[in-house]
Amino acid sequence: MKIYKGNILFTPSVHEFTLYQQGYLIEEEGKVKYTGVQLPEEYQKEQVTDFGDKLIIPGFNDVHVHAPQWCNAGIGFSMELLPWLNTYTFPAEAHFGDVEFAGKEYPRFVNELLKHGTTRACIFASRHLEATKVLIDTIAESGMGAYVGKVNMDRNAIPELQETTEDSLRETEELILWMKEKYGDTPKLNYILTPRYVPSTTSDLMDGLGKMSAEYHLPVQSHLDENRDEIAWVRQLHPESASFADVYEDHDLMPKGRTIMAHCIHMTEEEMALLKRKDVLIAHCAMSNADLASGIMPLRKYLDFGLNVAIASDMGGSHTVNMAEHIVDTIKASKIYWFYHPQDKAISFTEGFYLATKAGGSFFGKVGSFEEGYQFDALVIDDGRIRSGMEHSLLERLERFIYVGDSSCIEKRFVSGKECVYPIKEGKE
Amino acid sequence: MKIYKGNILFTPSVHEFTLYQQGYLIEEEGKVKYTGVQLPEEYQKEQVTDFGDKLIIPGFNDVHVHAPQWCNAGIGFSMELLPWLNTYTFPAEAHFGDVEFAGKEYPRFVNELLKHGTTRACIFASRHLEATKVLIDTIAESGMGAYVGKVNMDRNAIPELQETTEDSLRETEELILWMKEKYGDTPKLNYILTPRYVPSTTSDLMDGLGKMSAEYHLPVQSHLDENRDEIAWVRQLHPESASFADVYEDHDLMPKGRTIMAHCIHMTEEEMALLKRKDVLIAHCAMSNADLASGIMPLRKYLDFGLNVAIASDMGGSHTVNMAEHIVDTIKASKIYWFYHPQDKAISFTEGFYLATKAGGSFFGKVGSFEEGYQFDALVIDDGRIRSGMEHSLLERLERFIYVGDSSCIEKRFVSGKECVYPIKEGKE
Repeated sequence: MKIYKGNILFTPSVHEFTLYQQGYLIEEEGKVKYTGVQLPEEYQKEQVTDFGDKLIIPGFNDVHVHAPQWCNAGIGFSMELLPWLNTYTFPAEAHFGDVEFAGKEYPRFVNELLKHGTTRACIFASRHLEATKVLIDTIAESGMGAYVGKVNMDRNAIPELQETTEDSLRETEELILWMKEKYGDTPKLNYILTPRYVPSTTSDLMDGLGKMSAEYHLPVQSHLDENRDEIAWVRQLHPESASFADVYEDHDLMPKGRTIMAHCIHMTEEEMALLKRKDVLIAHCAMSNADLASGIMPLRKYLDFGLNVAIASDMGGSHTVNMAEHIVDTIKASKIYWFYHPQDKAISFTEGFYLATKAGGSFFGKVGSFEEGYQFDALVIDDGRIRSGMEHSLLERLERFIYVGDSSCIEKRFVSGKECVYPIKEGKE
Repeated sequence: MKIYKGNILFTPSVHEFTLYQQGYLIEEEGKVKYTGVQLPEEYQKEQVTDFGDKLIIPGFNDVHVHAPQWCNAGIGFSMELLPWLNTYTFPAEAHFGDVEFAGKEYPRFVNELLKHGTTRACIFASRHLEATKVLIDTIAESGMGAYVGKVNMDRNAIPELQETTEDSLRETEELILWMKEKYGDTPKLNYILTPRYVPSTTSDLMDGLGKMSAEYHLPVQSHLDENRDEIAWVRQLHPESASFADVYEDHDLMPKGRTIMAHCIHMTEEEMALLKRKDVLIAHCAMSNADLASGIMPLRKYLDFGLNVAIASDMGGSHTVNMAEHIVDTIKASKIYWFYHPQDKAISFTEGFYLATKAGGSFFGKVGSFEEGYQFDALVIDDGRIRSGMEHSLLERLERFIYVGDSSCIEKRFVSGKECVYPIKEGKE
């Protein structure tokens, strides 16, 4: 049991902040036991860790990010999705066939996440078995929370990356069992099935992964309706399915309440209804959607329709894992969308913060809030460096941290009550 | 005379990079004397400062930024321009009536510019005479280049900020003469007339400033066609002028080749023609235009039309002075614009870099390039921290610095051959 004191801010719902100036947070067995302005009677004699005037906020949850792309992030954005994948991303991911390369790059990636305050993430590795083990071990070492999957891709890849259907399924199962044995007692670290996207996976592979999802009760993550050329290609590849989204559903790759689909920019009404029915979490990647000229996702429309949406970095489709920047880009994109579609109101700061904390956290259980029973995932923010002579309210200070601050303001990172190991050791070149 | 060696990158034109791997830059009397791969015969025996494998690039030129808004940046973006000004910006600027407050905040602002590699800027101060002197002295101390003007605003302000027409003109002239006397021998530091924008300045004030521009041969900076409500208001205020842009022209506030207009999102064809005729430099503020939901400026259309455009931060209309981020946001905004207007091709990385260096530099003379005769304004970039196991070309390394890097990569900042004083001393609270 630990008691923390400081300025506590979180969003129990999408439209409201709870603020406790000089409040208390009691953590017990990794969970929030109490949050409030008064320390309850029975705890009055306990030791308190006092963070003074600093801010205590939930850690960020990044529900879509590509670990093997950090080594190449920011390069090649003159292209759209499909040529960018072939020219830059696939060749970069091919390097992870070399376990030593992975051993150098993955600690950098995990440090980059923690540096910017991401405490849990849903991660695409490359298609390589051994390198993905390295990534999982690295995440375990850091203490952050994650769903991780080796990418499955048995068609339309470059030769160095392409798998056979059989190898892809066999290695996936091997990894699932390895992870269960090694990390089965680590509830914050889990496997997620990761078919890259429809053009990369044959029907046989998708069928096999769909069966694994049922057999091992595993979640699924993939990409949907990101780019217009991509959508046209999927239509060609799968005329038998009603839509891009239906291809996943037709292969049992949309387990209810256990599926993340990234991008979802250009969905039809029928696809929206399907995703709602299957309780899919949409990973909204506003920065990537601009960097790769994919368009703007109609976020307000989806929220009004009752879809689950959370903010994601999609790094290397975008150029940073910094979730504060992704909150800002989500809000900016919604403002531009509103400019072109006046019926869809822009996203507020409160909504942006919720979508990067509690909305994404829901995929991991009770995560992303400081309500009783939630996992104690927290950041301690020292905003002294960015304060000015102006008087700012607690909420304005948080706004300043998100808009103006950077990683140097993040003093501590907790996951399930334990402080993360940051930075973890990076191998030398 | 100094000789520098390193990896040299700059954009002599909007479509082309010049790259010298392990090249030489010779600086003489603050200007570039030579750039190339070979050290000319006659310099072979001179001492060379070797920056090793680092990158040497032109400093960034920010052609539109608000000094008194750094203390409040990032707050209040739930509003559009007009309510945001009244609710957040004017009250923040009112603090600069206190010279001590200015003495604390302005060094922070100047350090923030230099931190992120801005070596010259066109700066709006507040309307206060004494505080603006503090700002000018602070910039002089740092050695960066700037045009600075006290804001003129004699209508529609909050009471604490509003000036009389007479005071506004008198104090402006006093400042011009003070600056001429104190810094007349400092060619990189100059006065620029700064009518806030039409709704803030009466016809009498604009007339008076127009006369000063002619009498002292001074440049002018202001805002134009940023927000639809603002444009409607200007139409109401000045039915006698053909357009928002014509209001400035009708008051002699568009001196040919010496005028910067910020935003220019919603210009008519006639306004575009007027700005072209008067050789106006458009300060393109893509991030601010998203943060304040103002829209997307049709950058490609303006470039094709032959208008002069440069990238600007417009901080606090945006939340950062970091010009690398503004390059990225300019490219992103142009991609989204292209998505909605397929005839207007997105901006390339090369174009983005040019618009933040040589395009803006043109307002300061021969600035923003390493061609012979240009001012030696340079940044030395140590990108070791962001390098990965991937092999990257020089241009890809620059792309990585712009997209993925941050101020910690900037090792040195030169203006007219002299290294800037950074950080300058900040007063204590």
